[in-house]
Amino acid sequence: MRAEIIAVGSELLLGQIVNTNAQFLSSQLAEMGINIHYHTVVGDNKGRLLDAIQIAERRADILLFSGGLGPTKDDLTKQTIAEHLGTSLVLDADALQFIEEFFAQRKRPMTENNKQQALVFEGATVLKNHNGMAPGMYYKKDKHTYILLPGPPKELEPMFQYEAKPLIAKQVLNNRMIYSHVIRFYGIGEAELETRLEDLIDQQTNPTIAPLASDGEVTIRLTATGETEEEAWKAIQKVQAEILNRVGKYVYGYNNDSLPLKLKEMLINQNLKIAAAESMTAGLFQAELATIPGMAQTLVGGIVAYNEDVKINQLGVDPVIIDEHSVVSSQCAEDMARKIQALFKTDIGVGITGAAGPDEHGGQPAGTVWIGIAFQGNTYSYELHLSGMRNTNRIRAVKFTIHYLLQLLREHNQIDV
Amino acid sequence: MRAEIIAVGSELLLGQIVNTNAQFLSSQLAEMGINIHYHTVVGDNKGRLLDAIQIAERRADILLFSGGLGPTKDDLTKQTIAEHLGTSLVLDADALQFIEEFFAQRKRPMTENNKQQALVFEGATVLKNHNGMAPGMYYKKDKHTYILLPGPPKELEPMFQYEAKPLIAKQVLNNRMIYSHVIRFYGIGEAELETRLEDLIDQQTNPTIAPLASDGEVTIRLTATGETEEEAWKAIQKVQAEILNRVGKYVYGYNNDSLPLKLKEMLINQNLKIAAAESMTAGLFQAELATIPGMAQTLVGGIVAYNEDVKINQLGVDPVIIDEHSVVSSQCAEDMARKIQALFKTDIGVGITGAAGPDEHGGQPAGTVWIGIAFQGNTYSYELHLSGMRNTNRIRAVKFTIHYLLQLLREHNQIDV
Repeated sequence: MRAEIIAVGSELLLGQIVNTNAQFLSSQLAEMGINIHYHTVVGDNKGRLLDAIQIAERRADILLFSGGLGPTKDDLTKQTIAEHLGTSLVLDADALQFIEEFFAQRKRPMTENNKQQALVFEGATVLKNHNGMAPGMYYKKDKHTYILLPGPPKELEPMFQYEAKPLIAKQVLNNRMIYSHVIRFYGIGEAELETRLEDLIDQQTNPTIAPLASDGEVTIRLTATGETEEEAWKAIQKVQAEILNRVGKYVYGYNNDSLPLKLKEMLINQNLKIAAAESMTAGLFQAELATIPGMAQTLVGGIVAYNEDVKINQLGVDPVIIDEHSVVSSQCAEDMARKIQALFKTDIGVGITGAAGPDEHGGQPAGTVWIGIAFQGNTYSYELHLSGMRNTNRIRAVKFTIHYLLQLLREHNQIDV
Repeated sequence: MRAEIIAVGSELLLGQIVNTNAQFLSSQLAEMGINIHYHTVVGDNKGRLLDAIQIAERRADILLFSGGLGPTKDDLTKQTIAEHLGTSLVLDADALQFIEEFFAQRKRPMTENNKQQALVFEGATVLKNHNGMAPGMYYKKDKHTYILLPGPPKELEPMFQYEAKPLIAKQVLNNRMIYSHVIRFYGIGEAELETRLEDLIDQQTNPTIAPLASDGEVTIRLTATGETEEEAWKAIQKVQAEILNRVGKYVYGYNNDSLPLKLKEMLINQNLKIAAAESMTAGLFQAELATIPGMAQTLVGGIVAYNEDVKINQLGVDPVIIDEHSVVSSQCAEDMARKIQALFKTDIGVGITGAAGPDEHGGQPAGTVWIGIAFQGNTYSYELHLSGMRNTNRIRAVKFTIHYLLQLLREHNQIDV
């Protein structure tokens, strides 16, 4: 089986965006043992897209398209392929209903253009869009399979993972089932993780074990095949048990979990309220938590104490602590945590202070971070020495804060139970 | 002039790395007015690379290759193209000397493979590698120009910028100079901007006028050529004056400016301190400002008033306002702004409240945002109706807040002067 990825979009050819979809799809297909011989990028131009399709049909069995499914006249992937294959477009009722509800909720008028997003090839398997309006398609004709996916990665990735991948697997694997499962780690580097799992990785057959690092997080994707999904899942569970046995303390979740999502779940399950006092991160910790809908059930709010006067006058940090230990110290982070916990009357108080860079701050070199957590009469603090640029350090500080909170809450939960 | 970028490397097809070189080269070539119709990625395979070259020769004048110039047997770009063009490879003395010195300095033995990196097409212009060993090449044959660049971005980017670009410019522009300038807009959509500048865009020759929208911002890139750089810049200034005349109130900066950077400059120039009370954005406004080093000179801090109790008890919003108008209202946003200004003793107080989504909030549909600004005894408020997903809405609310602050400060500055 040979596949080719065709990304459609003039913004790629103008260098306005980078083709991360090709990387995502490539790694997913490689996992399934499908060979990719070419990536092609072509602009929003019907003639040139047609040429690209004809070239790809000569050299691949599966053609994956990304982009060009939107409502504007630039979005011509669907129409062009339909014309090329001599297929008619029909309205998909589910997709149309989803689009209509989207506009109704927002009290905005739906234009004819938006309705056209619900048009699909007659006879195609419609791929549900979990994060947007345009549905995708899986369509077979003669020797070729055509898979149409939307351009935005947050739409393309879940659509591929949950909608397209099982269909491809079924086709490629002679009806054996494929099952894929991601374990998510924080607080351990990729090299360290691979060393601890070296023998498992060397012996991998079914499931395959694929570690991947990005943005300070490491994931391991386990992919197994079996006569049934249950059989594949059993093979995964066996290897997962051994992985958890060795490096379980760094595991924060699975599959679509994210650090703020897990924190929200754990806080709500334990019926805890949280507030934060942020200096170096200047609100980013709270803003990151608030990316998750419903966070208001547990996140009360906090103080951005960017300035030293605010730390003392509004937050109430003891000026003696700052004089003796500086604003970048375990003592200051812990006092920030205790003071926000008391002021905002929450179960948990968080304090984050540090030198984001590029300059030193509070007598500490760029990359030094202190995280304080006040919880149940105790105060904990954690030191980081980060080596990134200013804004990478700020994001890492936020992620480490969530990581330490999860570790604390997990221990607390175990003691309670 | 049509160009095609051919990236060579199986690691791209396996999804191990993302093709950032294509983005870099595309944006550079777009600036020079060169059309790119396709990107191709092909693996380290001679037959498939040959096919890709032949296809590209049919549809482009300039073929840019990235990758495959290294010392290992996988690196076959140079040999394959030489064979295809019937060109012989000769040792380049400068490149060889550089490689020999590299190994001598590190006291490591130089292998025959390493020496082969100094082989170039007979008659090619050799492109110096500022950050590595393999030289690049610029080679013309018949109607085509072949440009060979190394794969690692830190080698490719300076080689393109300083070695290849001037040669391409000379060829494409008949020795004229090129100059490029970006105008940055906020608070106006791409469609509206294009309508207001329609006649200018239709008549464009020198400079060219290229609008671009991303993340709610719109930019216009003006690119001119001239006998000298000054002449090109003069042509740009003339068109820019007309653009400013028509839509100047939406212009927040130029070239590498960003919204938070401009706000920092304007606040520091006017010697103003700022604090914020954030509900819907939960700290994101302050965190966005703090992406800029030195923001502590003007950003004092603020309160994340995510919860209604925090709005009333910590921030001091009048509960009658919330009862009568809800937490999502101009009255609440303005009171948040006034209260944070008073509490934190700053010149400017900002209040942001809204319904990020997916659910309604405070009786308002998702996407409703109220921004309050308290400044010099006055309070202003601004209403937004955003249509994105939750986190897009939160980011847009932050950007609009900066936009309105910039407008206010600009007016204030003009009145003062």
